Parts: sequence; structure tokens; C-alpha cells
Amino acid sequence: MTTDQPVDDSFHVFDTTLRDGAQREGINLTVADKLTIARHLDDFGVGFIEGGWPGANPRDTEFFARALAEIDFQHAQLVAFGATRRAGIRAADDPQVKALLDSGAPVITLVAKSHDRHVELALRTTLDENLAMVRDTVQYLREQGRRVFVDCEHFFDGYRANPEYAKAVVRAAHEAGADVVVLCDTNGGMLPPQVQAVVSTVAADTGARLGIHAQDDTGCAVANTLAAVDGGATHVQCTANGYGERVGNANLFPVVAALELKYGRRVLPEGSLAEMTRISHAIAEVVNLTPSTHQPYVGVSAFAHKAGLHASAIKVDPDLYQHIDPELVGNTMRMLVSDMAGRASVELKGKELGIDLGDDRELVGRVVDRVKDRELRGYTYEAADASFELLLREEVEGRPPRFFRTESWRAIAEDRPDGSHANEATVKVWADGERIVATAEGNGPVNALDRALLVALERIYPQMAKFELVDYKVRILEGRHGTESTTRVLITTSDGDAEWSTVGVAENVIAASWQALVDAYTYGLLKAGVRPTES
Amino acid sequence: MTTDQPVDDSFHVFDTTLRDGAQREGINLTVADKLTIARHLDDFGVGFIEGGWPGANPRDTEFFARALAEIDFQHAQLVAFGATRRAGIRAADDPQVKALLDSGAPVITLVAKSHDRHVELALRTTLDENLAMVRDTVQYLREQGRRVFVDCEHFFDGYRANPEYAKAVVRAAHEAGADVVVLCDTNGGMLPPQVQAVVSTVAADTGARLGIHAQDDTGCAVANTLAAVDGGATHVQCTANGYGERVGNANLFPVVAALELKYGRRVLPEGSLAEMTRISHAIAEVVNLTPSTHQPYVGVSAFAHKAGLHASAIKVDPDLYQHIDPELVGNTMRMLVSDMAGRASVELKGKELGIDLGDDRELVGRVVDRVKDRELRGYTYEAADASFELLLREEVEGRPPRFFRTESWRAIAEDRPDGSHANEATVKVWADGERIVATAEGNGPVNALDRALLVALERIYPQMAKFELVDYKVRILEGRHGTESTTRVLITTSDGDAEWSTVGVAENVIAASWQALVDAYTYGLLKAGVRPTES
Repeated sequence: MTTDQPVDDSFHVFDTTLRDGAQREGINLTVADKLTIARHLDDFGVGFIEGGWPGANPRDTEFFARALAEIDFQHAQLVAFGATRRAGIRAADDPQVKALLDSGAPVITLVAKSHDRHVELALRTTLDENLAMVRDTVQYLREQGRRVFVDCEHFFDGYRANPEYAKAVVRAAHEAGADVVVLCDTNGGMLPPQVQAVVSTVAADTGARLGIHAQDDTGCAVANTLAAVDGGATHVQCTANGYGERVGNANLFPVVAALELKYGRRVLPEGSLAEMTRISHAIAEVVNLTPSTHQPYVGVSAFAHKAGLHASAIKVDPDLYQHIDPELVGNTMRMLVSDMAGRASVELKGKELGIDLGDDRELVGRVVDRVKDRELRGYTYEAADASFELLLREEVEGRPPRFFRTESWRAIAEDRPDGSHANEATVKVWADGERIVATAEGNGPVNALDRALLVALERIYPQMAKFELVDYKVRILEGRHGTESTTRVLITTSDGDAEWSTVGVAENVIAASWQALVDAYTYGLLKAGVRPTES
Repeated sequence: MTTDQPVDDSFHVFDTTLRDGAQREGINLTVADKLTIARHLDDFGVGFIEGGWPGANPRDTEFFARALAEIDFQHAQLVAFGATRRAGIRAADDPQVKALLDSGAPVITLVAKSHDRHVELALRTTLDENLAMVRDTVQYLREQGRRVFVDCEHFFDGYRANPEYAKAVVRAAHEAGADVVVLCDTNGGMLPPQVQAVVSTVAADTGARLGIHAQDDTGCAVANTLAAVDGGATHVQCTANGYGERVGNANLFPVVAALELKYGRRVLPEGSLAEMTRISHAIAEVVNLTPSTHQPYVGVSAFAHKAGLHASAIKVDPDLYQHIDPELVGNTMRMLVSDMAGRASVELKGKELGIDLGDDRELVGRVVDRVKDRELRGYTYEAADASFELLLREEVEGRPPRFFRTESWRAIAEDRPDGSHANEATVKVWADGERIVATAEGNGPVNALDRALLVALERIYPQMAKFELVDYKVRILEGRHGTESTTRVLITTSDGDAEWSTVGVAENVIAASWQALVDAYTYGLLKAGVRPTES
């Protein structure tokens, strides 16, 4: 199938990872996390990024201020989420509505009740006042120059209970100037035939442009989203990796993959689909959840074949055993027993880093073997480009780039009888032919180690002074042994201009951090143009 | 909806966890595992259990022998899976076919090619000979007194390529005496409308009784299975928890839940559905995979509510916010305590923990304020029920439950010149009126602290010996300041029977771990019925 239409306003890919996705149990996003995810989503090419509910909490308010100031959006428009005005007051007088305008977002999604019992029991107002609330708020925001989408909460349950009222809400939103009215399966209990029937009926009866927002409680959110498109919806609300409350939301990735590859409908910018696997994994890293190995299209197992019966036939024609070419979504076919890194991806990665591995099949093979060996031990290079580049350079140049040698280190964390904490570290390193011993204090043992290393080396490598650790993530691997497990640390370092990420794996968090710190400084010095001195 | 029909042969719930499910990357079942899973599936009430391919490997042969001898099946019939006879020989002369009979299984599923290119490229025979192979093998097994189902592999892709040939295979199987012809979406690339259309056309054109076997590569396997039922299929092949090759198979649990609760069709024995959550988790334990927290119907998050917005309305009427009553599938509603939550969710949470906050609005207000204040500082209670319960008890009882007091602690992590690591911790605590100083080593500083605390207190609280840290998560908060940030540690502890989670937040990972450890031991001792001694 080909995707020959251009991406335009006729179909909306609307992402709500930052708002509804954040409702997932276990996700707790900082403003910095939200900014990083927004960059990934814009990079991927979604049309709309719903960032949160400005005014509802200080974090969301800060996010909008910073996103609009700091992100140069290439594809997406930023969307603020909020509610219709309160009962009995003017939209212009409602501080909640004012906060939506104050956010500066060019697009606003208003959540509206469309289920009669919810109006009465949760909103505690009359059915007529609810319609007026929808009309007034949409009109007011339109007058203030904003584009407005209306999310009809609990629409499908409401439609079952009182179809005329549910449609009246859609009409009120549509006639007041909402560009899209989104039918939400908030409780997630629908199945595709019902969704398609309701969407096509409501479209015919109201004339409104419709969208779909599906929760995954029946395990059918992707299919329900596509059924709504079959019924006439031209706006799909999804979340990256299907994050969301309870079971989750319709997963952005299989939805756009189905639209592009199965429907032949271009809904993302050219080339975006091939970034899908990378973007999915990158967002999982930011929210600090292990990427699902069995996620459709993007999971590491999604194109993994347990050979046997099929092996020889796959060699003849892999298309006989795969519903799509995995490269279309940036994934790769794997024959099991072999591990994650294949030759092709190492070559590609080398090219991406500006290291030409040329036709040296033996060199590429060596790198693949080392990556496999290290990934088996818990390393991950997907999120640690700088460590991967150091590994690659070591294989290309025959020895690791090194600016200092570690003799030993020690970190002490202490809680004193008076309740104060003390953290102190000592490092003994060799650099420039000299043995240096340095001690420093910090907020914690890793911070103390970081500072001690800086104290030791700053005189020889003054460039180190501007390196700053900007993110630090810890994950315990082989989950069921508590503090005796293997620990993986991912560190992001900045020199003020660029950021780079490094990885360390060891039996405890301090030793793993030390490895990642050493990689971080080594990479930073290489990047600053300093020549490695030690061997 | 009610499910008023009895379970009979008119609809088949066919489970293939032991055959196709075992193809999942990371699953490797022993015969004992397979026997245990078969018991769970029979207990759950599926009609058919496909146990493997007898003759293909010794493990599957042994499984059939032992399952028929050892399991007193209450609901299920055991099914052996195998292939049609080889090209050019009689079915009676094919040792592979003989092994199917030798297994003793009363029902046999034969896999048959129905895609013309697969016949030519993978089977390397003619289209006519393939039809003869289907006919002969079915007839022969029927003559031997077995019930036969035929799985048409790659049916949907085959139907697209050559519909007449695909249907000829269905007719051959049907006319030779197969009770059900199962249409397989082997590559998993289909979407529900296609599946429904193909199934209803094939049913009309061939007159065969049809089944469906769907893989989940588009994320639509559950919906595809239901679409096939809508198209006339009366036999669904699924796997527990959706285990299977690549992304996986249609998940048994949401399929039967939809059929019973949404279609009102009785497909399992009375009372089975309420065992679904337990059975799902039990099978996950046997295959040694962590149960998916976000699996529809049965995940621990499937009925977990986070949004404060909804909590007050949930108190009025939980049905407004849930697509089904979780007890129907043996699950429970949970309120997550988070900064988005207010009074209503704290009250509901108290009730869940068996602590009646009654009408004490002032008490509830105090708890809400403390939760908000602590969440602002980085704590999260949604993933740390035990810490939340300790906080609640402190507010209800006026003082924190305490078994010991910490005077001080110190942890040392060291990397020695010879490359070896040393980790040592000393704790000074007061318990039972006594000052105790203890030192221990560990794999890392937190492990050493954990052990030192155990050494110090085990004599006074022998119950502590069976507490084990089973999971440990670290998150750096306010992400953009590296190792100087606030650190949050979540610890899960087990006493062999139950697990509980606690949280600690501090400026470094060791201090945060200490807090979470103290909560973990305090909660565990309370749970073991020990009375707090310190104040």
C-alpha cells in the first residue's frame, strides 16, 4: 500500500500522553520529563500534543509556559485541556477557563459531560445548563481566537442511556464553533461494531466533525479507534505506548501504523513511521517504564521468530511470515537465540555517529558480539549513545579512549545522631603521569564521587568544569532479588550546548554510577577535542 | 446482560497456551509446568486444551501420556496438534500422523496449508496434492475414532492471494469430516472488518463450521476474534494472557469476558468468570513472567482510579466509572492516592485498608494535607500502600507505630586498587530499651544497610528473618539537576505470603533507601501482629 496523500488538517493525529497518559498508575512526570516527551512527539510528527490542564496544578502551568518558550515545534500544535465553565457563571468569569487562555496554547480541548446521569450526579446541574455551559465556553474561547475541540466524556455510555441528549451535546459544541467533537469511551467498555455504528449515526445526525478517544478496558482500544475512523471520524486521540488510566488508552503506534500501512492513509510526515520503534522506546525511558517487549510493531519481540518449522521458508521469502516489513516501523526481524543487535543496526548506528565501518565485516561482527555480550549483562545502548560510541571507537582504534586511570575510590554515606547527613568520597586516579588523590563532599555518595573526580582532574582538564549531570536514572535488573540484583545506571551529562547519555552496570548503584560517570567525562573530553592521554 | 444459555458443543473455547502460547520469546515450559497449566485451564472451564505436538519432541509426547493418566479433567478435552500427512504417502503410513493417534488425545487439530504460495514454497508440493493430504488425513483420523479440527494456516493472506484455493482447502477439510475448520491469521496482519467479511463469506460459500485463530501483530487479536464470531465463527482459539509468538495470540481472558459480559453468551461453566483474575495470575507464575499490571479485566491496574476529578462521583455510583463490576472477573476496584486525589479517594482508600475514617472530616482533611505536602516533596503513595497505611495509622492513633529508633547509620562503598568492591554498613539503633550497634557487609551499600539492620534487630524481632526485599526502584526527581536532585526509592518486601511496598525520599539514594527500609520493616512487624514498642 502507498500513502500518497499529504498530511493536512483533514485528519488529526492527536496525542494525549502528557495529559491522559500520565494517569497511568506508576507514571509521575516532572516538567522536564514532559518537555522531553513533547520534543519526541513533535519529532515523530503528531499534529497535536495535549500537554495537561493549566491551572489545575502548578506543574502543568509551568509546562505550558516553558514548552511555548523553549520548544521550536516542527509539526505539532500544543493543546491545553480544561473543562467547560462552572454552572451559573459566565465563561469569562471562570478562573479555570481563564487559566486555559493564560496558558497561551493555540488549541484548547474542553471536556464536557454528555451522559445525562453524569450531568446530574457528578456535575450536579441541569441538562439544559450543561448544554449552555458547552455553548458558552466554546463561543467564548473562539472569540478569544482559540481553536476548540470538545471531548464528550462517557459519550458511548451516555448515548446508550439517552441518545437524544448525547447528540444534543454534540450539536451544542458543533454549533458554537468547536472544530471537532470527540466521542470518548471513557470507561472503555465498547467493542468495535458498536463504536462504528454510533459514530456513523452521530455524524449523520449532527453534521459535526467527529473524533474518537478510546480506553482499552476490553482490549479493543486500537480496533475501536479504527472502527470510529471507518464510521467517519477524522481525529484520533491516542497515547504513546498506550499509557493511560486503568488498562490504558488507544496506543498511538499501532493506530498510526494501521492507518498508514493498512488503510494507505498518510497521517504523519514522510519518514516518520520508520522512527516509531525508536520514539516508543525513548518515551518509555523518560517515563521510566521498561518498554513492552511484546508491543505490536515496536516491541523487540514483534518480529522475532522462534525458527523451527519456518526457518527455511523465511530465508526464501520473509514476507510470507511477516505482515509488514519491520523496517517500515524502524524495527528488525530477529531469529531467536540471536540477540538484539544485528549487523545492519550497528552499521547504521556507526553511520549515524559519523564512524564509517565501511565494508569491514569482521569489525562489524566484533562490535555486534560485544554489544550482545554486554546487553546480556544488562547494558542498554539504545538510551546510551555516548557509551556506544566509546565502545565503537575502542573497536575501530584498537584501544579505549582514556583520559585517566582509576586506582580506587570510596564513598561514604552517613546519617548522624543529630539527624544531619554527611556524604564524602575519595578518588585515587592517574592522569598526565601523575597520581592524584582527591576528596569531596556531596548531597549523596554519587554526587560526592562526581565532585571528587572533578577536583582531581579539573587542573589537567579545565573543560570538565562546565560538564553537569542533568539526569540520572537507576533500574534494578532481574527484578526479583531486591538489593542483591544487578543495577543499571543511565546518566545524562550536559556541557551547556549538547547532552549525552552513558550507561553503567554493576552489582550496586555506586559502582554502576562510577562506570557511567567515567564514560560521561571521557565522552565529554573527546567531544571537547581533547586528545586521550592514557592507554 | 445475562448469560442464560448452558455451555455446550455449539460454541468452543479452545485454549492453545501449551502449544502456540509456548512459542512466546522467554517461555520455556517443563512437562510439570504444562500439567499445572492444564489443571488451571480445566479448572477455569475451557472446552479444549491443545497440549502440544506429540511426536515432535519427547516433552510433548510425555505430556500427553501424563496428562491423560494424571489429570481428572472436569471440563476440557485434551487436543493433540499435528500436520497433515506428508506428500506422496498414505496417512496410515506417516509416522507423524501415527504419533498423533498414539498420544491418546480424543481430539486432533491438523495444521493445513491454505495459501497457494506456502504450498509451493514451504511445502514444495502441488496444490492438488495438498488438498489430497488434507482429505486423506482427516478421513483417516476420523476412521480411527478421533474428532478432528483443521487449522488453515495463513488463511487470510491466502484468501487475499487466491480465494478459490483457500476455500477449496476449507471444503476438503469439511467434506472429509473435520468438525471445525479454523481460519488462522498466522501473520497477524488483519483488522476486524476484513476478518468478519472473510469469515462470513467463507461460511456461506463452504457450509463448514468455522473457527478463528488470531495473532496480535496489529494489536487487534481480541477484536479480530470477536469479529469472526460476528461473522459466524463458533470456535475461538486463544492463549492465557495472550502469550504467543512475536506479539502474541488472542488473549483468552478478554475474549471470554466480552462473550459473556458484552454478548451475553454463556461460553464457560457457571462461576468461572469470577476466577479469571486468579487463573491469569496463577498461569503467569507458572510460566515465570510478571503478570501484566495493565492487562484488561485481570491486571491489578484494570480497575484502579487515579483522577481526583472522578473520586467524589465514584463514591456516589462506581458503575458510572467502570464498564463492568470488577467482582464479575474476580478483580477489585482500587483507589490510587496521588496528588490529583482529594478527600473522597482518601476515605475510599481507608475503607480498602480496613481503617474506618468515618465522618471525621477533620481527620480526613489532615491526611489529605499530609499526603499533598509529602507528594510535593516527591513521595508517591499510589505505589506504596504500606507507607500510606503507616501514615494513616499515625494520624488515626496520634503517633507513628515504631519498633526501633535510629540513632545513626553509615554506609561505605569502595572500589579497591585490585578491582574488587567492598560494601559495609553500620547501624546504631535503640530497641526494647537497648542500644544496639551492628555492622554487616553486602553487595552494595543499601544491601549492607539492610543486613546490618537485620543483624541488629533479629534477636528482638525474629519475624524479621523471613522478610525479603523482592523489588527495588529508584527515581531521581526534578530531573534536571543530576545527582544533586531528590531521590525517591520504592521497595517491595515479601514475607513469603504477601508483598508490600514502601517509599522513601531524600537528597540521596542511600538516605531514601533507609527510609523505605524502615517503613518496610515497621509495616511487616505490624502485619505479623507484633505490638509497637517505641514512641
